[in-house]
Amino acid sequence: MAIRPTIAAFGQVDGQLAVGGIPLKRLAERVGSTPFFAYDRALLTDRVRLLRSTLPQRIHLSYAIKANPMPAVVQHLSTLVDSFDVASGAEMRTALDTPMPAANVSFAGPGKTAASIAQAVASGVIIEIESFTEAARIVRAGERLAIRPRVAIRVNPNFEVKGSGMRMGGGSQQFGIDAEKVPSILDKLVAANVEFLGFHVFAGSQNLSAEILCAAQRRTVELILELARNSPPIRYVNLGGGFGIPYFDKDRPLELPAIGANLAELLETLIEPNLPGARVVIELGRYIVGECGVYVTRVVDRKLSRGRQYLVVDGGLHHQLAASGNFGQVIRRNYPIAVGNRLCEAADEAVTVVGCLCTPLDLLGDNVSLPHAEIGDLIVLFQAGAYGLTASPTAFLGHAPPIEVIV
Amino acid sequence: MAIRPTIAAFGQVDGQLAVGGIPLKRLAERVGSTPFFAYDRALLTDRVRLLRSTLPQRIHLSYAIKANPMPAVVQHLSTLVDSFDVASGAEMRTALDTPMPAANVSFAGPGKTAASIAQAVASGVIIEIESFTEAARIVRAGERLAIRPRVAIRVNPNFEVKGSGMRMGGGSQQFGIDAEKVPSILDKLVAANVEFLGFHVFAGSQNLSAEILCAAQRRTVELILELARNSPPIRYVNLGGGFGIPYFDKDRPLELPAIGANLAELLETLIEPNLPGARVVIELGRYIVGECGVYVTRVVDRKLSRGRQYLVVDGGLHHQLAASGNFGQVIRRNYPIAVGNRLCEAADEAVTVVGCLCTPLDLLGDNVSLPHAEIGDLIVLFQAGAYGLTASPTAFLGHAPPIEVIV
Repeated sequence: MAIRPTIAAFGQVDGQLAVGGIPLKRLAERVGSTPFFAYDRALLTDRVRLLRSTLPQRIHLSYAIKANPMPAVVQHLSTLVDSFDVASGAEMRTALDTPMPAANVSFAGPGKTAASIAQAVASGVIIEIESFTEAARIVRAGERLAIRPRVAIRVNPNFEVKGSGMRMGGGSQQFGIDAEKVPSILDKLVAANVEFLGFHVFAGSQNLSAEILCAAQRRTVELILELARNSPPIRYVNLGGGFGIPYFDKDRPLELPAIGANLAELLETLIEPNLPGARVVIELGRYIVGECGVYVTRVVDRKLSRGRQYLVVDGGLHHQLAASGNFGQVIRRNYPIAVGNRLCEAADEAVTVVGCLCTPLDLLGDNVSLPHAEIGDLIVLFQAGAYGLTASPTAFLGHAPPIEVIV
Repeated sequence: MAIRPTIAAFGQVDGQLAVGGIPLKRLAERVGSTPFFAYDRALLTDRVRLLRSTLPQRIHLSYAIKANPMPAVVQHLSTLVDSFDVASGAEMRTALDTPMPAANVSFAGPGKTAASIAQAVASGVIIEIESFTEAARIVRAGERLAIRPRVAIRVNPNFEVKGSGMRMGGGSQQFGIDAEKVPSILDKLVAANVEFLGFHVFAGSQNLSAEILCAAQRRTVELILELARNSPPIRYVNLGGGFGIPYFDKDRPLELPAIGANLAELLETLIEPNLPGARVVIELGRYIVGECGVYVTRVVDRKLSRGRQYLVVDGGLHHQLAASGNFGQVIRRNYPIAVGNRLCEAADEAVTVVGCLCTPLDLLGDNVSLPHAEIGDLIVLFQAGAYGLTASPTAFLGHAPPIEVIV
């Protein structure tokens, strides 16, 4: 099972899952209540170290805060990565509350309001322009505040990346400026009082194929070089990310070394000769935090109904929607799951793990093999570090929100 | 289009949609910011009046707070319906903050914790037992608090209801006590110091077929009569609900008169003769509030990308997840949508309405025909009164939460 190494990375103490080295039952007491999300500080550090040692040294590593905006996680990562990407005014404040310099924060996303743009101009972050309307808003905000906005252009490429969980480039898109319109928006920017830094191309997310990602990176670099031919000097090249993590049995982890080799070649043959001195950024969210977090719930009921053994836990889809199947996915698959305080016991029971909500969609483990669990035991869902809590409907049915800790 | 009458129910003022009689642009100013949810007080009243006039007078109407727990909505409905159903401790507090007597509040849902059960016992609400574990917890809480718990049994029926949006009865379930186990749990309850009131059978939700709902109600009554033969006197019969509302073009509204006639017959021929004096409850959430609410966003960008015209609005799936397709439904359909301040203008443009989030899943209207909308215009999504805000990941990307008003 591909995700086994991920589970093993947390380690065990006394037959229990360890998070941050703390056995799970003790951690649950320390947190004070279940359910909770726990993020492992050392695993986060290791993950960034792995990226540093596998990708070329010259690559700047950016963390996309949207994947997990918990302030303590962002603080920890501020000491490890080179830059942050933010998608809203609130994420911008979280980023700026860390020691990360504003100059190393980028702000992307469609539908930026005049208010968030003013916030970005005043902060001095890099605003990634997604439309002509935004460009005009940025120029106006700069004039009003008498601050020269720092901008890059987010480009909707003229190619598509296959195999991504989400395609976010190619064809018509709400994201970015269509590649063929870049010269026209560059004309406007050059004429205005803004500091133009470079380009961002982001083609898709959650991709597990190194081959596809490498091809996308090459086409991205080629596109940026083409655009750079008629642009002011380029100091910022954001190649996006899209590195996926395995969620299901069938998933194989991404082959990171192949990506590192590809980036090294692109740097040597295309980027360094043509864009010397440009900051070359790989932007990752899920890949940095996704495997470093767990969602921990407690069994509140064991219930046999017409031959099916249920474990009812005190959490559910209101905290970890993706694991439940996002309100009714047609093909729902189980996220990796374990009885966290019985890690060494044999999986000798087929159970269905459900949450505490009044909906049959609140399903966390459908007919999974687990050690016999009792009321009070701790059920752990893995791969919960990214797009867990913030991508879930926490107010659904009015249950208390879960706690988040980093240990 | 089936949902046209729903839209028409709100009415128009000066070519704008009216909510609570207030033209939309004025309402947006009164709310103070977009996006927002607005619920129409008069439409809520009308809806309950429609139910009252179509269902037999003897039917008690219960509102399932989970559909929309906004306190002001619940306060308004407390003057209109006979009882409330709650699914959590927080919903229980919302219900008890209204003039609704605790005796008319029921508490259902799997995984009830000892704490929420104690809260329910102390409040005097009807606790709907979903498992043997819960029954034991209720008895213990009653002993500890020296209060006799008021209980009903939620029954997982021995039949299934077809055509529901969600099946919640029949086969194996996390919900309720399997029908064949009811005698065994009744034995325990009779021996304990609890006040047994009756049964609740809930087989499914969001069903648009009166024929199927009528058949389910008949089987439900038959099952309850069978269970009642060996039970203490029955004073509470909750027949569930499951009445659906139309969301899509193809949907036809539920034929309520047929359901009223069926209930009248069941009352006369089966319930009154066998369970005289029992409170007979129909429990509805979505059917009461779903069509009485709108989600209002403002256009922040118009953007043409490779032949496709986008409108980018300041809201999105973080507020109204279902309308976007719940993070990637295979067959996504558009919810009814309008330019709320251009209700009388011709729909002469095909546009794709997207939210402000950094994900292609943030799609509110895919290639819909609307009047030409400009930046600043108000885009309205209908059928937003139930499972809107609370069923959405409000913290996603850190945008401000929407406001809710009832007018």
